[in-house]
Amino acid sequence: VARLISLVENQSGRDVAAACLPYLGHARVIGITGSPGVGKSTSTAALVSMLRAKGSTVAVLAVDPSSPFSGGALLGDRIRMQEHATDPGVFIRSMATRGHLGGLATAAPQALRVLDAAGFDVILIETVGVGQSEVEVVELADTTVVLLAPGMGDAVQAAKAGILEVADLFVVNKADRDGADQVVRDLRYMQSLGGGHSLPGSWRPPIVKAVAARGENFPEIVAALNRHQEYLHRSGELTRRRTSRAGAEVEAIALDVVRQRFEQIHGSAGLLELAGAVAAGELVPFTAADRLVASLS
Amino acid sequence: VARLISLVENQSGRDVAAACLPYLGHARVIGITGSPGVGKSTSTAALVSMLRAKGSTVAVLAVDPSSPFSGGALLGDRIRMQEHATDPGVFIRSMATRGHLGGLATAAPQALRVLDAAGFDVILIETVGVGQSEVEVVELADTTVVLLAPGMGDAVQAAKAGILEVADLFVVNKADRDGADQVVRDLRYMQSLGGGHSLPGSWRPPIVKAVAARGENFPEIVAALNRHQEYLHRSGELTRRRTSRAGAEVEAIALDVVRQRFEQIHGSAGLLELAGAVAAGELVPFTAADRLVASLS
Repeated sequence: VARLISLVENQSGRDVAAACLPYLGHARVIGITGSPGVGKSTSTAALVSMLRAKGSTVAVLAVDPSSPFSGGALLGDRIRMQEHATDPGVFIRSMATRGHLGGLATAAPQALRVLDAAGFDVILIETVGVGQSEVEVVELADTTVVLLAPGMGDAVQAAKAGILEVADLFVVNKADRDGADQVVRDLRYMQSLGGGHSLPGSWRPPIVKAVAARGENFPEIVAALNRHQEYLHRSGELTRRRTSRAGAEVEAIALDVVRQRFEQIHGSAGLLELAGAVAAGELVPFTAADRLVASLS
Repeated sequence: VARLISLVENQSGRDVAAACLPYLGHARVIGITGSPGVGKSTSTAALVSMLRAKGSTVAVLAVDPSSPFSGGALLGDRIRMQEHATDPGVFIRSMATRGHLGGLATAAPQALRVLDAAGFDVILIETVGVGQSEVEVVELADTTVVLLAPGMGDAVQAAKAGILEVADLFVVNKADRDGADQVVRDLRYMQSLGGGHSLPGSWRPPIVKAVAARGENFPEIVAALNRHQEYLHRSGELTRRRTSRAGAEVEAIALDVVRQRFEQIHGSAGLLELAGAVAAGELVPFTAADRLVASLS
Protein backbone atom coordinates (compact mmCIF):
# COMPACT_ATOMS: atom_id res chain seq x y z
CA VAL A 1 0.00 0.00 0.00
CA ALA A 2 2.79 2.40 0.92
CA ARG A 3 4.56 1.73 -2.38
CA LEU A 4 1.33 2.24 -4.34
CA ILE A 5 0.81 5.59 -2.62
CA SER A 6 4.38 6.60 -3.46
CA LEU A 7 3.58 5.76 -7.07
CA VAL A 8 0.50 7.98 -7.12
CA GLU A 9 2.42 10.76 -5.36
CA ASN A 10 5.02 10.60 -8.08
CA GLN A 11 2.60 11.11 -10.93
CA SER A 12 2.48 7.43 -11.87
CA GLY A 13 -1.09 7.23 -10.74
CA ARG A 14 -2.74 6.18 -13.98
CA ASP A 15 -1.97 2.48 -13.80
CA VAL A 16 -2.56 2.37 -10.07
CA ALA A 17 -5.99 3.99 -10.46
CA ALA A 18 -6.96 1.49 -13.14
CA ALA A 19 -5.82 -1.42 -10.97
CA CYS A 20 -7.84 -0.16 -7.98
CA LEU A 21 -11.08 0.35 -9.91
CA PRO A 22 -12.70 -3.08 -9.22
CA TYR A 23 -12.16 -2.83 -5.46
CA LEU A 24 -13.61 0.60 -4.64
CA GLY A 25 -16.52 1.77 -2.52
CA HIS A 26 -16.06 0.08 0.85
CA ALA A 27 -14.24 2.65 3.01
CA ARG A 28 -15.79 5.47 5.02
CA VAL A 29 -13.76 8.65 4.64
CA ILE A 30 -13.63 10.95 7.66
CA GLY A 31 -11.81 14.28 7.55
CA ILE A 32 -10.36 15.84 10.69
CA THR A 33 -9.35 19.47 10.56
CA GLY A 34 -8.77 22.50 12.76
CA SER A 35 -6.22 25.21 13.52
CA PRO A 36 -2.70 24.33 14.61
CA GLY A 37 -2.61 23.40 18.30
CA VAL A 38 -6.18 22.18 18.80
CA GLY A 39 -4.97 18.60 19.15
CA LYS A 40 -5.61 17.03 15.76
CA SER A 41 -2.95 14.35 16.01
CA THR A 42 -3.95 13.37 19.55
CA SER A 43 -7.61 13.24 18.54
CA THR A 44 -6.81 11.17 15.48
CA ALA A 45 -4.85 8.72 17.65
CA ALA A 46 -7.74 8.49 20.14
CA LEU A 47 -10.22 7.93 17.32
CA VAL A 48 -8.03 5.19 15.85
CA SER A 49 -8.03 3.44 19.26
CA MET A 50 -11.84 3.59 19.44
CA LEU A 51 -12.33 2.30 15.92
CA ARG A 52 -9.80 -0.51 16.41
CA ALA A 53 -11.55 -1.55 19.62
CA LYS A 54 -14.71 -1.98 17.54
CA GLY A 55 -12.82 -4.19 15.06
CA SER A 56 -12.52 -1.71 12.17
CA THR A 57 -9.30 -1.45 10.20
CA VAL A 58 -8.14 2.15 9.89
CA ALA A 59 -5.90 4.09 7.52
CA VAL A 60 -4.67 7.53 8.53
CA LEU A 61 -3.66 9.96 5.81
CA ALA A 62 -2.00 12.99 7.41
CA VAL A 63 -2.17 15.62 4.72
CA ASP A 64 0.00 18.64 5.21
CA PRO A 65 -1.15 21.29 2.77
CA SER A 66 0.53 23.85 4.97
CA SER A 67 3.99 22.48 4.57
CA PRO A 68 4.76 23.02 0.92
CA PHE A 69 8.46 23.56 1.43
CA SER A 70 9.58 21.21 4.18
CA GLY A 71 7.32 18.38 3.05
CA GLY A 72 6.12 15.91 5.64
CA ALA A 73 4.95 15.79 9.22
CA LEU A 74 7.17 16.54 12.17
CA LEU A 75 8.42 14.13 14.75
CA GLY A 76 5.82 15.00 17.40
CA ASP A 77 2.93 13.61 15.39
CA ARG A 78 4.65 10.38 14.69
CA ILE A 79 5.37 9.91 18.38
CA ARG A 80 1.73 10.50 19.27
CA MET A 81 0.71 7.85 16.73
CA GLN A 82 3.39 5.39 17.87
CA GLU A 83 1.01 3.26 19.92
CA HIS A 84 -0.59 2.23 16.62
CA ALA A 85 2.66 1.81 14.67
CA THR A 86 2.92 -1.94 15.20
CA ASP A 87 -0.79 -2.71 14.71
CA PRO A 88 -1.28 -4.38 11.30
CA GLY A 89 -4.89 -3.12 11.26
CA VAL A 90 -3.64 0.47 11.18
CA PHE A 91 -1.86 2.15 8.28
CA ILE A 92 -0.36 5.62 8.71
CA ARG A 93 0.90 7.82 5.95
CA SER A 94 1.96 11.45 5.73
CA MET A 95 1.53 13.36 2.54
CA ALA A 96 2.83 16.79 1.64
CA THR A 97 1.24 18.69 -1.17
CA ARG A 98 4.34 20.50 -2.33
CA GLY A 99 2.96 23.97 -2.53
CA HIS A 100 1.35 23.79 -5.91
CA LEU A 101 -2.28 24.63 -6.28
CA GLY A 102 -4.27 21.48 -6.80
CA GLY A 103 -1.66 19.43 -4.94
CA LEU A 104 -4.09 18.03 -2.43
CA ALA A 105 -6.75 17.86 -5.10
CA THR A 106 -4.74 15.56 -7.34
CA ALA A 107 -2.60 13.31 -5.12
CA ALA A 108 -4.84 12.79 -2.09
CA PRO A 109 -7.89 11.32 -3.91
CA GLN A 110 -5.60 8.78 -5.53
CA ALA A 111 -4.13 7.83 -2.17
CA LEU A 112 -7.71 7.48 -0.88
CA ARG A 113 -8.50 5.17 -3.78
CA VAL A 114 -5.51 2.95 -2.97
CA LEU A 115 -6.52 2.78 0.71
CA ASP A 116 -10.15 2.04 -0.22
CA ALA A 117 -9.11 -0.70 -2.65
CA ALA A 118 -6.81 -2.13 0.04
CA GLY A 119 -9.95 -2.80 2.09
CA PHE A 120 -9.66 -0.41 5.02
CA ASP A 121 -12.97 0.12 6.79
CA VAL A 122 -12.26 3.70 7.76
CA ILE A 123 -9.89 6.28 6.27
CA LEU A 124 -9.09 9.26 8.46
CA ILE A 125 -7.72 12.31 6.65
CA GLU A 126 -6.06 14.60 9.12
CA THR A 127 -5.16 18.06 7.88
CA VAL A 128 -3.93 21.30 9.35
CA GLY A 129 -6.42 23.74 8.16
CA VAL A 130 -7.75 27.14 8.08
CA GLY A 131 -9.37 28.02 4.86
CA GLN A 132 -8.53 26.53 1.54
CA SER A 133 -7.19 23.31 2.98
CA GLU A 134 -10.41 22.81 4.92
CA VAL A 135 -12.44 23.31 1.82
CA GLU A 136 -10.33 20.67 0.11
CA VAL A 137 -10.85 18.27 3.00
CA VAL A 138 -14.57 18.77 2.62
CA GLU A 139 -14.22 17.73 -0.99
CA LEU A 140 -12.31 14.60 0.05
CA ALA A 141 -14.28 13.39 3.06
CA ASP A 142 -17.74 11.90 3.51
CA THR A 143 -17.83 13.41 6.99
CA THR A 144 -15.82 16.40 8.19
CA VAL A 145 -14.91 16.78 11.86
CA VAL A 146 -13.83 20.27 12.90
CA LEU A 147 -11.77 20.44 16.08
CA LEU A 148 -11.74 23.49 18.30
CA ALA A 149 -10.11 24.10 21.66
CA PRO A 150 -10.40 26.79 24.33
CA GLY A 151 -7.90 29.61 23.95
CA MET A 152 -7.22 28.91 20.29
CA GLY A 153 -9.12 31.91 18.99
CA ASP A 154 -12.75 32.58 19.71
CA ALA A 155 -15.84 31.55 17.79
CA VAL A 156 -15.76 34.77 15.77
CA GLN A 157 -12.33 33.70 14.52
CA ALA A 158 -13.76 30.25 13.77
CA ALA A 159 -16.54 31.87 11.78
CA LYS A 160 -14.01 34.02 9.93
CA ALA A 161 -12.11 30.87 9.06
CA GLY A 162 -15.23 29.46 7.41
CA ILE A 163 -15.21 26.64 9.96
CA LEU A 164 -18.92 26.69 10.72
CA GLU A 165 -19.96 25.96 7.17
CA VAL A 166 -17.74 22.94 6.55
CA ALA A 167 -18.31 20.94 9.75
CA ASP A 168 -20.53 17.86 10.00
CA LEU A 169 -19.41 17.43 13.60
CA PHE A 170 -17.75 19.85 16.04
CA VAL A 171 -15.39 18.47 18.67
CA VAL A 172 -14.38 20.92 21.38
CA ASN A 173 -11.13 19.34 22.52
CA LYS A 174 -9.24 20.04 25.77
CA ALA A 175 -12.65 20.32 27.43
CA ASP A 176 -11.00 20.09 30.85
CA ARG A 177 -9.61 23.57 30.33
CA ASP A 178 -11.25 26.88 31.17
CA GLY A 179 -13.30 28.28 28.36
CA ALA A 180 -14.54 25.02 26.81
CA ASP A 181 -18.16 25.75 27.72
CA GLN A 182 -17.80 29.21 26.24
CA VAL A 183 -16.57 27.70 22.94
CA VAL A 184 -19.64 25.42 22.93
CA ARG A 185 -21.99 28.35 23.68
CA ASP A 186 -20.40 30.48 20.96
CA LEU A 187 -20.71 27.65 18.44
CA ARG A 188 -24.40 27.18 19.35
CA TYR A 189 -24.99 30.91 18.94
CA MET A 190 -23.20 30.95 15.57
CA GLN A 191 -25.25 27.94 14.47
CA SER A 192 -28.45 29.73 15.47
CA LEU A 193 -27.40 32.73 13.36
CA GLY A 194 -26.59 30.60 10.33
CA GLY A 195 -29.85 28.71 10.35
CA GLY A 196 -28.97 26.90 7.14
CA HIS A 197 -29.19 23.48 8.71
CA SER A 198 -32.61 23.85 10.25
CA LEU A 199 -34.67 22.27 7.45
CA PRO A 200 -36.57 19.15 8.55
CA GLY A 201 -34.55 16.00 7.82
CA SER A 202 -31.39 18.00 7.34
CA TRP A 203 -28.24 17.50 9.40
CA ARG A 204 -27.47 19.85 12.25
CA PRO A 205 -23.80 19.39 13.17
CA PRO A 206 -23.61 18.15 16.77
CA ILE A 207 -21.11 19.64 19.22
CA VAL A 208 -19.21 17.14 21.38
CA LYS A 209 -16.80 18.09 24.17
CA ALA A 210 -13.79 15.80 24.54
CA VAL A 211 -10.35 15.37 26.07
CA ALA A 212 -8.41 13.56 23.37
CA ALA A 213 -5.33 12.96 25.52
CA ARG A 214 -7.46 10.73 27.78
CA GLY A 215 -9.88 9.48 25.11
CA GLU A 216 -12.70 11.18 27.05
CA ASN A 217 -16.04 11.27 25.20
CA PHE A 218 -14.66 9.51 22.14
CA PRO A 219 -17.47 6.90 22.28
CA GLU A 220 -19.87 9.84 21.80
CA ILE A 221 -17.79 11.04 18.86
CA VAL A 222 -17.91 7.63 17.19
CA ALA A 223 -21.68 7.47 17.80
CA ALA A 224 -22.13 10.89 16.18
CA LEU A 225 -19.98 9.81 13.22
CA ASN A 226 -22.19 6.73 12.78
CA ARG A 227 -25.35 8.83 12.91
CA HIS A 228 -23.90 11.10 10.22
CA GLN A 229 -23.06 8.12 8.04
CA GLU A 230 -26.67 6.90 8.30
CA TYR A 231 -27.84 10.39 7.37
CA LEU A 232 -25.50 10.43 4.35
CA HIS A 233 -26.93 7.15 3.05
CA ARG A 234 -30.56 7.96 3.84
CA SER A 235 -30.53 11.42 2.27
CA GLY A 236 -28.58 10.60 -0.87
CA GLU A 237 -26.01 13.12 0.30
CA LEU A 238 -23.26 10.47 0.14
CA THR A 239 -23.66 10.03 -3.62
CA ARG A 240 -23.86 13.79 -4.06
CA ARG A 241 -20.65 14.35 -2.09
CA ARG A 242 -18.75 11.56 -3.82
CA THR A 243 -19.83 12.79 -7.25
CA SER A 244 -18.73 16.30 -6.37
CA ARG A 245 -15.43 14.89 -5.11
CA ALA A 246 -14.91 12.92 -8.33
CA GLY A 247 -15.75 16.00 -10.41
CA ALA A 248 -13.18 18.07 -8.57
CA GLU A 249 -10.60 15.31 -9.03
CA VAL A 250 -11.24 14.93 -12.75
CA GLU A 251 -11.01 18.69 -13.24
CA ALA A 252 -7.81 18.90 -11.20
CA ILE A 253 -6.18 16.10 -13.21
CA ALA A 254 -7.29 17.66 -16.48
CA LEU A 255 -5.91 21.07 -15.49
CA ASP A 256 -2.69 19.38 -14.39
CA VAL A 257 -2.40 17.78 -17.82
CA VAL A 258 -3.02 21.17 -19.43
CA ARG A 259 -0.39 22.78 -17.20
CA GLN A 260 2.14 20.16 -18.32
CA ARG A 261 1.18 20.85 -21.94
CA PHE A 262 1.95 24.54 -21.45
CA GLU A 263 5.41 23.57 -20.29
CA GLN A 264 5.93 21.06 -23.13
CA ILE A 265 4.84 23.55 -25.77
CA HIS A 266 6.64 26.65 -24.53
CA GLY A 267 9.44 25.28 -22.35
CA SER A 268 10.15 26.81 -18.97
CA ALA A 269 12.22 29.53 -20.67
CA GLY A 270 9.23 30.47 -22.84
CA LEU A 271 6.92 30.65 -19.83
CA LEU A 272 9.48 32.71 -17.91
CA GLU A 273 9.80 35.14 -20.80
CA LEU A 274 6.03 35.57 -20.92
CA ALA A 275 5.92 36.13 -17.14
CA GLY A 276 8.79 38.60 -17.36
CA ALA A 277 6.91 40.65 -19.97
CA VAL A 278 3.84 40.74 -17.71
CA ALA A 279 5.93 41.65 -14.64
CA ALA A 280 7.61 44.46 -16.60
CA GLY A 281 4.21 45.89 -17.53
CA GLU A 282 4.73 45.21 -21.24
CA LEU A 283 1.95 42.66 -21.56
CA VAL A 284 -1.50 42.22 -20.02
CA PRO A 285 -1.70 38.86 -18.19
CA PHE A 286 -4.92 37.99 -20.02
CA THR A 287 -3.18 38.35 -23.37
CA ALA A 288 -0.37 36.11 -22.13
CA ALA A 289 -2.92 33.57 -20.86
CA ASP A 290 -4.79 33.64 -24.17
CA ARG A 291 -1.54 32.82 -25.97
CA LEU A 292 -1.06 29.80 -23.74
CA VAL A 293 -4.60 28.55 -24.29
CA ALA A 294 -4.41 29.18 -28.05
CA SER A 295 -1.28 27.04 -28.21
CA LEU A 296 -3.24 23.98 -27.03
CA SER A 297 -5.25 23.50 -30.20
CA VAL B 1 -11.02 52.28 -7.57
CA ALA B 2 -13.69 50.30 -5.70
CA ARG B 3 -15.77 49.99 -8.87
CA LEU B 4 -12.75 48.84 -10.87
CA ILE B 5 -12.03 46.15 -8.28
CA SER B 6 -15.64 45.00 -8.44
CA LEU B 7 -15.21 44.70 -12.20
CA VAL B 8 -12.11 42.51 -11.88
CA GLU B 9 -13.82 40.42 -9.18
CA ASN B 10 -16.67 39.80 -11.55
CA GLN B 11 -14.51 38.43 -14.34
CA SER B 12 -14.55 41.66 -16.35
CA GLY B 13 -10.89 42.11 -15.67
CA ARG B 14 -9.58 42.12 -19.22
CA ASP B 15 -10.38 45.71 -20.11
CA VAL B 16 -9.41 46.92 -16.66
CA ALA B 17 -6.02 45.20 -16.84
CA ALA B 18 -5.36 46.76 -20.25
CA ALA B 19 -6.32 50.21 -18.96
CA CYS B 20 -4.02 49.86 -15.93
CA LEU B 21 -0.97 48.76 -17.92
CA PRO B 22 0.65 52.18 -18.47
CA TYR B 23 0.48 53.10 -14.77
CA LEU B 24 2.05 50.06 -13.10
CA GLY B 25 5.15 49.52 -11.00
CA HIS B 26 5.02 52.15 -8.29
CA ALA B 27 3.47 50.40 -5.27
CA ARG B 28 5.23 48.29 -2.68
CA VAL B 29 3.22 45.18 -1.87
CA ILE B 30 3.41 43.88 1.70
CA GLY B 31 1.62 40.70 2.76
CA ILE B 32 0.50 40.19 6.36
CA THR B 33 -0.47 36.72 7.43
CA GLY B 34 -0.81 34.49 10.49
CA SER B 35 -3.23 32.17 12.26
CA PRO B 36 -6.63 33.43 13.38
CA GLY B 37 -6.37 35.40 16.61
CA VAL B 38 -2.79 36.66 16.36
CA GLY B 39 -4.01 40.19 15.72
CA LYS B 40 -3.71 40.66 11.99
CA SER B 41 -6.37 43.34 11.66
CA THR B 42 -5.04 45.31 14.63
CA SER B 43 -1.50 45.06 13.28
CA THR B 44 -2.62 46.14 9.84
CA ALA B 45 -4.39 49.17 11.34
CA ALA B 46 -1.27 50.07 13.36
CA LEU B 47 0.92 49.72 10.28
CA VAL B 48 -1.43 51.94 8.28
CA SER B 49 -1.14 54.63 10.98
CA MET B 50 2.67 54.47 10.84
CA LEU B 51 2.81 54.63 7.05
CA ARG B 52 0.32 57.49 6.92
CA ALA B 53 2.35 59.42 9.49
CA LYS B 54 5.29 59.15 7.09
CA GLY B 55 3.15 60.53 4.26
CA SER B 56 2.59 57.32 2.27
CA THR B 57 -0.80 56.54 0.79
CA VAL B 58 -1.94 53.05 1.70
CA ALA B 59 -4.38 50.53 0.24
CA VAL B 60 -5.47 47.57 2.34
CA LEU B 61 -6.71 44.46 0.59
CA ALA B 62 -8.16 42.08 3.19
CA VAL B 63 -8.24 38.75 1.42
CA ASP B 64 -10.30 36.05 3.00
CA PRO B 65 -9.37 32.76 1.38
CA SER B 66 -10.77 31.01 4.43
CA SER B 67 -14.27 32.21 3.96
CA PRO B 68 -15.37 30.58 0.74
CA PHE B 69 -19.00 30.27 1.77
CA SER B 70 -19.87 33.38 3.73
CA GLY B 71 -17.75 35.71 1.61
CA GLY B 72 -16.41 38.86 3.19
CA ALA B 73 -14.91 40.09 6.41
CA LEU B 74 -16.78 40.28 9.68
CA LEU B 75 -17.81 43.39 11.51
CA GLY B 76 -14.97 43.30 14.05
CA ASP B 77 -12.30 43.93 11.44
CA ARG B 78 -14.13 46.84 9.96
CA ILE B 79 -14.46 48.43 13.37
CA ARG B 80 -10.74 48.06 14.03
CA MET B 81 -10.02 49.80 10.73
CA GLN B 82 -12.60 52.53 11.32
CA GLU B 83 -10.06 55.15 12.41
CA HIS B 84 -8.81 55.11 8.81
CA ALA B 85 -12.23 54.99 7.15
CA THR B 86 -12.48 58.73 6.55
CA ASP B 87 -8.83 59.24 5.52
CA PRO B 88 -8.70 59.83 1.72
CA GLY B 89 -5.10 58.54 1.73
CA VAL B 90 -6.32 55.12 2.85
CA PHE B 91 -8.34 52.68 0.76
CA ILE B 92 -9.77 49.53 2.36
CA ARG B 93 -11.27 46.62 0.51
CA SER B 94 -12.30 43.11 1.53
CA MET B 95 -12.14 40.34 -0.98
CA ALA B 96 -13.47 36.81 -0.65
CA THR B 97 -12.14 34.13 -2.92
CA ARG B 98 -15.33 32.12 -3.14
CA GLY B 99 -13.93 28.72 -2.42
CA HIS B 100 -12.65 27.86 -5.84
CA LEU B 101 -9.05 26.87 -6.25
CA GLY B 102 -7.19 29.65 -7.92
CA GLY B 103 -9.61 32.22 -6.56
CA LEU B 104 -6.99 34.28 -4.83
CA ALA B 105 -4.58 33.60 -7.66
CA THR B 106 -6.85 35.14 -10.29
CA ALA B 107 -8.78 37.98 -8.65
CA ALA B 108 -6.25 39.36 -6.15
CA PRO B 109 -3.42 40.15 -8.61
CA GLN B 110 -5.89 42.13 -10.69
CA ALA B 111 -7.02 44.07 -7.65
CA LEU B 112 -3.35 44.73 -6.87
CA ARG B 113 -2.87 46.04 -10.40
CA VAL B 114 -5.80 48.44 -10.00
CA LEU B 115 -4.44 49.71 -6.68
CA ASP B 116 -0.94 50.07 -8.13
CA ALA B 117 -2.23 51.97 -11.15
CA ALA B 118 -4.27 54.19 -8.83
CA GLY B 119 -0.97 55.38 -7.40
CA PHE B 120 -0.95 54.01 -3.84
CA ASP B 121 2.54 53.97 -2.33
CA VAL B 122 1.97 50.86 -0.26
CA ILE B 123 -0.50 47.99 -0.67
CA LEU B 124 -1.05 45.82 2.38
CA ILE B 125 -2.56 42.41 1.70
CA GLU B 126 -3.95 40.98 4.91
CA THR B 127 -4.92 37.34 4.85
CA VAL B 128 -5.97 34.73 7.37
CA GLY B 129 -3.60 31.98 6.70
CA VAL B 130 -2.22 28.68 7.53
CA GLY B 131 -0.90 26.84 4.58
CA GLN B 132 -2.07 27.26 1.05
CA SER B 133 -3.30 30.79 1.57
CA GLU B 134 0.09 31.80 2.98
CA VAL B 135 1.81 30.38 -0.04
CA GLU B 136 -0.50 32.41 -2.22
CA VAL B 137 0.26 35.57 -0.25
CA VAL B 138 3.95 34.92 -0.82
CA GLU B 139 3.23 34.82 -4.53
CA LEU B 140 1.40 38.15 -4.31
CA ALA B 141 3.63 40.17 -2.01
CA ASP B 142 7.10 41.66 -2.35
CA THR B 143 7.54 41.27 1.40
CA THR B 144 5.70 38.81 3.63
CA VAL B 145 5.15 39.58 7.32
CA VAL B 146 4.22 36.57 9.46
CA LEU B 147 2.47 37.40 12.72
CA LEU B 148 2.71 35.16 15.75
CA ALA B 149 1.41 35.61 19.28
CA PRO B 150 2.00 33.85 22.58
CA GLY B 151 -0.48 31.10 23.30
CA MET B 152 -1.52 30.65 19.67
CA GLY B 153 0.31 27.35 19.19
CA ASP B 154 4.01 26.87 19.76
CA ALA B 155 6.87 27.24 17.31
CA VAL B 156 6.64 23.56 16.37
CA GLN B 157 3.10 24.25 15.21
CA ALA B 158 4.39 27.29 13.33
CA ALA B 159 6.98 25.12 11.64
CA LYS B 160 4.30 22.55 10.78
CA ALA B 161 2.29 25.32 9.22
CA GLY B 162 5.19 26.15 6.91
CA ILE B 163 5.40 29.61 8.47
CA LEU B 164 9.16 29.72 8.84
CA GLU B 165 9.82 29.33 5.16
CA VAL B 166 7.51 32.05 3.88
CA ALA B 167 8.38 34.91 6.24
CA ASP B 168 10.57 37.87 5.34
CA LEU B 169 9.82 39.39 8.74
CA PHE B 170 8.41 37.86 11.92
CA VAL B 171 6.32 40.00 14.23
CA VAL B 172 5.60 38.50 17.65
CA ASN B 173 2.46 40.40 18.56
CA LYS B 174 0.90 40.73 22.03
CA ALA B 175 4.45 40.90 23.36
CA ASP B 176 3.15 42.17 26.71
CA ARG B 177 1.76 38.71 27.40
CA ASP B 178 3.50 35.80 29.05
CA GLY B 179 5.30 33.58 26.60
CA ALA B 180 6.33 36.20 24.03
CA ASP B 181 10.04 35.72 24.76
CA GLN B 182 9.57 31.97 24.43
CA VAL B 183 8.02 32.45 20.98
CA VAL B 184 11.05 34.56 19.98
CA ARG B 185 13.49 31.95 21.35
CA ASP B 186 11.68 29.13 19.57
CA LEU B 187 11.70 31.08 16.30
CA ARG B 188 15.45 31.73 16.66
CA TYR B 189 16.03 28.06 17.35
CA MET B 190 13.96 27.03 14.32
CA GLN B 191 15.85 29.53 12.18
CA SER B 192 19.17 28.08 13.37
CA LEU B 193 17.93 24.60 12.38
CA GLY B 194 16.82 25.77 8.95
CA GLY B 195 20.05 27.47 8.07
CA GLY B 196 18.82 28.22 4.56
CA HIS B 197 19.15 31.96 5.01
CA SER B 198 22.75 31.99 6.23
CA LEU B 199 24.45 32.62 2.88
CA PRO B 200 26.43 35.90 2.79
CA GLY B 201 24.32 38.72 1.40
CA SER B 202 21.12 36.72 1.84
CA TRP B 203 18.19 37.89 3.92
CA ARG B 204 17.72 36.53 7.41
CA PRO B 205 14.15 37.32 8.50
CA PRO B 206 14.31 39.58 11.56
CA ILE B 207 12.07 38.94 14.55
CA VAL B 208 10.36 42.02 16.05
CA LYS B 209 8.24 41.99 19.20
CA ALA B 210 5.25 44.33 19.15
CA VAL B 211 1.97 45.26 20.79
CA ALA B 212 -0.24 46.20 17.88
CA ALA B 213 -3.10 47.47 20.04
CA ARG B 214 -0.78 50.27 21.32
CA GLY B 215 1.36 50.57 18.18
CA GLU B 216 4.37 49.51 20.25
CA ASN B 217 7.52 48.81 18.20
CA PHE B 218 5.83 49.61 14.90
CA PRO B 219 8.60 52.08 13.99
CA GLU B 220 10.98 49.09 14.18
CA ILE B 221 8.64 47.09 11.95
CA VAL B 222 8.56 49.85 9.33
CA ALA B 223 12.37 50.10 9.50
CA ALA B 224 12.69 46.34 8.95
CA LEU B 225 10.27 46.54 6.02
CA ASN B 226 12.38 49.30 4.48
CA ARG B 227 15.56 47.26 4.92
CA HIS B 228 13.88 44.34 3.20
CA GLN B 229 12.82 46.54 0.31
CA GLU B 230 16.40 47.70 -0.15
CA TYR B 231 17.52 44.07 -0.09
CA LEU B 232 14.91 43.18 -2.73
CA HIS B 233 16.16 45.90 -5.08
CA ARG B 234 19.87 45.29 -4.44
CA SER B 235 19.72 41.50 -4.88
CA GLY B 236 17.46 41.38 -7.93
CA GLU B 237 15.03 39.38 -5.81
CA LEU B 238 12.26 41.91 -6.50
CA THR B 239 12.30 41.20 -10.24
CA ARG B 240 12.49 37.47 -9.55
CA ARG B 241 9.49 37.59 -7.20
CA ARG B 242 7.41 39.78 -9.50
CA THR B 243 8.18 37.56 -12.48
CA SER B 244 7.21 34.48 -10.49
CA ARG B 245 4.02 36.26 -9.41
CA ALA B 246 3.18 37.18 -12.99
CA GLY B 247 3.85 33.61 -14.12
CA ALA B 248 1.49 32.22 -11.51
CA GLU B 249 -1.15 34.76 -12.51
CA VAL B 250 -0.87 34.00 -16.22
CA GLU B 251 -1.10 30.27 -15.54
CA ALA B 252 -4.09 30.74 -13.23
CA ILE B 253 -5.93 32.83 -15.81
CA ALA B 254 -5.12 30.34 -18.56
CA LEU B 255 -6.37 27.41 -16.46
CA ASP B 256 -9.49 29.40 -15.62
CA VAL B 257 -10.13 29.91 -19.33
CA VAL B 258 -9.61 26.18 -19.88
CA ARG B 259 -12.01 25.36 -17.04
CA GLN B 260 -14.65 27.56 -18.64
CA ARG B 261 -14.04 25.80 -21.97
CA PHE B 262 -14.71 22.43 -20.31
CA GLU B 263 -18.06 23.75 -19.16
CA GLN B 264 -18.88 25.31 -22.57
CA ILE B 265 -18.01 22.12 -24.42
CA HIS B 266 -19.63 19.56 -22.13
CA GLY B 267 -22.21 21.57 -20.22
CA SER B 268 -22.59 21.13 -16.46
CA ALA B 269 -24.75 18.06 -17.07
CA GLY B 270 -21.98 16.46 -19.12
CA LEU B 271 -19.38 17.16 -16.43
CA LEU B 272 -21.72 15.80 -13.74
CA GLU B 273 -22.28 12.62 -15.74
CA LEU B 274 -18.53 12.13 -16.06
CA ALA B 275 -18.04 12.73 -12.33
CA GLY B 276 -20.88 10.32 -11.52
CA ALA B 277 -19.23 7.56 -13.55
CA VAL B 278 -15.96 8.13 -11.68
CA ALA B 279 -17.73 8.20 -8.30
CA ALA B 280 -19.54 4.95 -9.14
CA GLY B 281 -16.24 3.27 -9.93
CA GLU B 282 -17.11 2.81 -13.61
CA LEU B 283 -14.42 5.11 -14.94
CA VAL B 284 -10.85 5.95 -13.94
CA PRO B 285 -10.52 9.70 -13.23
CA PHE B 286 -7.51 9.93 -15.55
CA THR B 287 -9.55 8.61 -18.44
CA ALA B 288 -12.26 11.15 -17.68
CA ALA B 289 -9.65 13.92 -17.48
CA ASP B 290 -8.10 12.84 -20.79
CA ARG B 291 -11.52 13.12 -22.43
CA LEU B 292 -11.83 16.69 -21.16
CA VAL B 293 -8.39 17.67 -22.41
CA ALA B 294 -8.93 15.94 -25.76
CA SER B 295 -12.10 17.97 -26.26
CA LEU B 296 -10.08 21.20 -26.27
CA SER B 297 -8.42 20.64 -29.63
